[in-house]
Amino acid sequence: MAATARANTPSAYAELSVRFRRLSAISGALAVLEWDRAAMMPVGGAEARAEQVAALGVLHHELLTAPAVGALLDHAEAEATGLDPWQAANLRAMRRGWRHATALSADLVEAKLRAVSRCEMVWRTARAENDFAALRPHLAEVVALTREAAGVKAAAFGCTPYEALLDEYEPEGSLDRLDTLFGELLGFLPDFVARALETQAHQPAPIVPRGPFPAERQRQAALRLMTALGFDFNHGRLDASDHPFTGGVPQDVRITTRYDEADFTRALMGVLHESGHAFYERGLPEAWADQPVGQARGMALHESQSLLIEMQVCRSPAFLAFAAPILREVFAGEAAAFAPDNLGRVYRRVARSLIRVDADEVTYPLHVILRYRLEKALLAGDLAVADLPGAWSAGMVELVGVAPPSDREGCLQDIHWPGGAFGYFPTYTLGALAAAQLFAAAKAQIPDLLDLIATGEFAPLRQWLTANVHCFGARFGTDAVLRQATGSVLGTAAFRRHLEARYLT
Amino acid sequence: MAATARANTPSAYAELSVRFRRLSAISGALAVLEWDRAAMMPVGGAEARAEQVAALGVLHHELLTAPAVGALLDHAEAEATGLDPWQAANLRAMRRGWRHATALSADLVEAKLRAVSRCEMVWRTARAENDFAALRPHLAEVVALTREAAGVKAAAFGCTPYEALLDEYEPEGSLDRLDTLFGELLGFLPDFVARALETQAHQPAPIVPRGPFPAERQRQAALRLMTALGFDFNHGRLDASDHPFTGGVPQDVRITTRYDEADFTRALMGVLHESGHAFYERGLPEAWADQPVGQARGMALHESQSLLIEMQVCRSPAFLAFAAPILREVFAGEAAAFAPDNLGRVYRRVARSLIRVDADEVTYPLHVILRYRLEKALLAGDLAVADLPGAWSAGMVELVGVAPPSDREGCLQDIHWPGGAFGYFPTYTLGALAAAQLFAAAKAQIPDLLDLIATGEFAPLRQWLTANVHCFGARFGTDAVLRQATGSVLGTAAFRRHLEARYLT
Repeated sequence: MAATARANTPSAYAELSVRFRRLSAISGALAVLEWDRAAMMPVGGAEARAEQVAALGVLHHELLTAPAVGALLDHAEAEATGLDPWQAANLRAMRRGWRHATALSADLVEAKLRAVSRCEMVWRTARAENDFAALRPHLAEVVALTREAAGVKAAAFGCTPYEALLDEYEPEGSLDRLDTLFGELLGFLPDFVARALETQAHQPAPIVPRGPFPAERQRQAALRLMTALGFDFNHGRLDASDHPFTGGVPQDVRITTRYDEADFTRALMGVLHESGHAFYERGLPEAWADQPVGQARGMALHESQSLLIEMQVCRSPAFLAFAAPILREVFAGEAAAFAPDNLGRVYRRVARSLIRVDADEVTYPLHVILRYRLEKALLAGDLAVADLPGAWSAGMVELVGVAPPSDREGCLQDIHWPGGAFGYFPTYTLGALAAAQLFAAAKAQIPDLLDLIATGEFAPLRQWLTANVHCFGARFGTDAVLRQATGSVLGTAAFRRHLEARYLT
Repeated sequence: MAATARANTPSAYAELSVRFRRLSAISGALAVLEWDRAAMMPVGGAEARAEQVAALGVLHHELLTAPAVGALLDHAEAEATGLDPWQAANLRAMRRGWRHATALSADLVEAKLRAVSRCEMVWRTARAENDFAALRPHLAEVVALTREAAGVKAAAFGCTPYEALLDEYEPEGSLDRLDTLFGELLGFLPDFVARALETQAHQPAPIVPRGPFPAERQRQAALRLMTALGFDFNHGRLDASDHPFTGGVPQDVRITTRYDEADFTRALMGVLHESGHAFYERGLPEAWADQPVGQARGMALHESQSLLIEMQVCRSPAFLAFAAPILREVFAGEAAAFAPDNLGRVYRRVARSLIRVDADEVTYPLHVILRYRLEKALLAGDLAVADLPGAWSAGMVELVGVAPPSDREGCLQDIHWPGGAFGYFPTYTLGALAAAQLFAAAKAQIPDLLDLIATGEFAPLRQWLTANVHCFGARFGTDAVLRQATGSVLGTAAFRRHLEARYLT
């Protein structure tokens, strides 16, 4: 495939494609090491793994920032008239990666990688033991190094420090755009939550399926639904880890979940969510797999694919009509609890709750907006890490209407900040908005889509998503993809219509 | 720990220790990727993994062969009077690695890595389908590239091409030494096999435990015995793969086995064998973990540790007296089949058989000598890959006394040649000899060792092995370690005495 990428092209571009192919292989190796760390590695392997990840991260950085690369990019851009549109987009993606990498010194990159490795390991224990004090110095170190990196990048890119971080995850994610979209959400969501709860109060209470549900049985249920959706196990795996994620590379996508034997519903829906990410990865343009343009556009589109599968498809009455008999069979469950309508009441329950990953789609954006505010404050120096637990609690009361009884259910719940990912949280909600917009378009363009879903026919939807989102890789921006697929750029209207149809009727 | 390695030392050596620390991290990353490929990776991930492994292999080679490294080695050797004995040994180990790496061009290294990746993947299918023709062109490519590498190294080191390959696995493994030791074995083994079979014919036939033995139950049995032996699951894992091996890094040792639900005995003993490798890795000097001297001395000592645990300890009446009740309980087995004496007859059965990894310790060296002859002939150009199946059959008839009915049970059985490992097989038998010699010494030095084993007390033996073998890493040569621990260099006498005591009485 690299041959395709390089045939009959100007020499500087060809040389760059060779170099970026190597960088892609190193990134792929890192993805496997990270997956292993979360899903397989015994605790005693942490120090050695931190060394391995740091060494590869620094090497990647050194190779990307070698003086020759900057010169080659300049030459290739000067010769760019000879490039086809994919190559031109690839060259832009190369430049974007290079700008991020050259902004930071190798020392800062290595210091941050090491701090994040340590902090993530401490976080695993600190969360389990509800011990914010243990995490605090490590998180403070990560925040300090992230502030330093954000400041350097902001100066180089001519944007705010927060935007410089956001840009790593979502190239079009300006503060203006976030403030506008989040402002629109804040304009209706608080009232909407109250109305949804009111509507829900007039419906039958959900019958909670009674466990225990052995992890192995849950895994079997997940594998059956993944298979039905079209997950290709020749190119992927399902495993368990503390924090569910999608990792690996497009040829070999590794998704994970976390099993609770008292409640199968979360792990199962988590698997379907990650499957949406996996479909995106698998649908990326194979001919460009080893080049920057062959990667996902950004996390907003990535989350749109997981949330489309989870929220739009798998929590719908249509999907639950298909899944209910399978789940009832696997768990030998009672008829009343496993009836599609009842599973719908379980899976579409709205609640003012504490844990983001378990939050319903109505309150979820409020969890995200809290984190958006707090991470901006942490990075601006307006909030000290020591004050995070208090600020978290106050924000939860204001936005969601509940106060966490412990840090475990408060600011210790997410791996993102210990993992050095600031500017990431907003993409969850951008993704939810995009998912609603894309699914509305898919329903308009695929005849009887909900009927197909109800009978377990997922290929038409998957093909539509591949043709309208996945296959472009990073060639177009998020808004360009959405405009092409749905007729408009990212907005809140489709999301609001979706919520109204689902929760106020 | 690198601080220890670098404190108060001449500057060239200190600079080298930084560089080799990075190389160690890359090697560790490669070890995890290789383990994953064998134990976890879905088949569709093969191409991407081959790219990752090739990229890291080439990077490792580039970093090790950078012009500065040769100059630093020269300077450090000139300043070597300032080094302590560990540092001096580390410097020698660095030079050894550098000599192997600089002998080959980056192109040849990359070509061989790619050919091996492809050939290994083809081998997995070819073996399953008994299809030597499918493997042939890939194996021919690997042989051709290995011949080229061996020739280049032989010229650089001033030895024969075969010795140049052998040196990668066993630094003291000259052809003279192999021919002498193997000659001694060939001097008594053929007759010994006949006498052992004759002795065995006068004993009760073993009662074969009746299955099926579910893989999960076998895994439970293996985990119990690993735990009893002292395997530290905070620093290691047990998984399944087609070809059992020990991988990972000393902090995080990954062992694998292959389950056959009709017969638990092979997977179980395979796990105990790999556990012996794992104990060696875990016992290596931690302060030198990121430096060449902190690695295993060579494969002869490595195999001595697995074979000491497997052959000397775990197939002994003492160990089986300890293990029998555990196995009977896990498998809910019948009293007669799970009696220690009967398990001994199962586990010490001598047979003229086809598969090396299942061969008894009496005939095993004959399997190795066959491979030694064939790989020398392949590399010398005296045997074409196309003629391998025939030469294999003829050799099996001559040495072991049986002819394979298919290539699957003949020349397709081992991963070594498809994996590019020529010169490796002899180390199995060197290891068997060393194991007998070391265990005889351990019995002489630890009071009541067999009684301790029979009661499940393995710590004294493990500590003896760590103190006499593991803790030296690569500081001393194989013969120096053996002379220190047993009073003499590697020979066949202890092995012969062991066989006579076990099989002729």
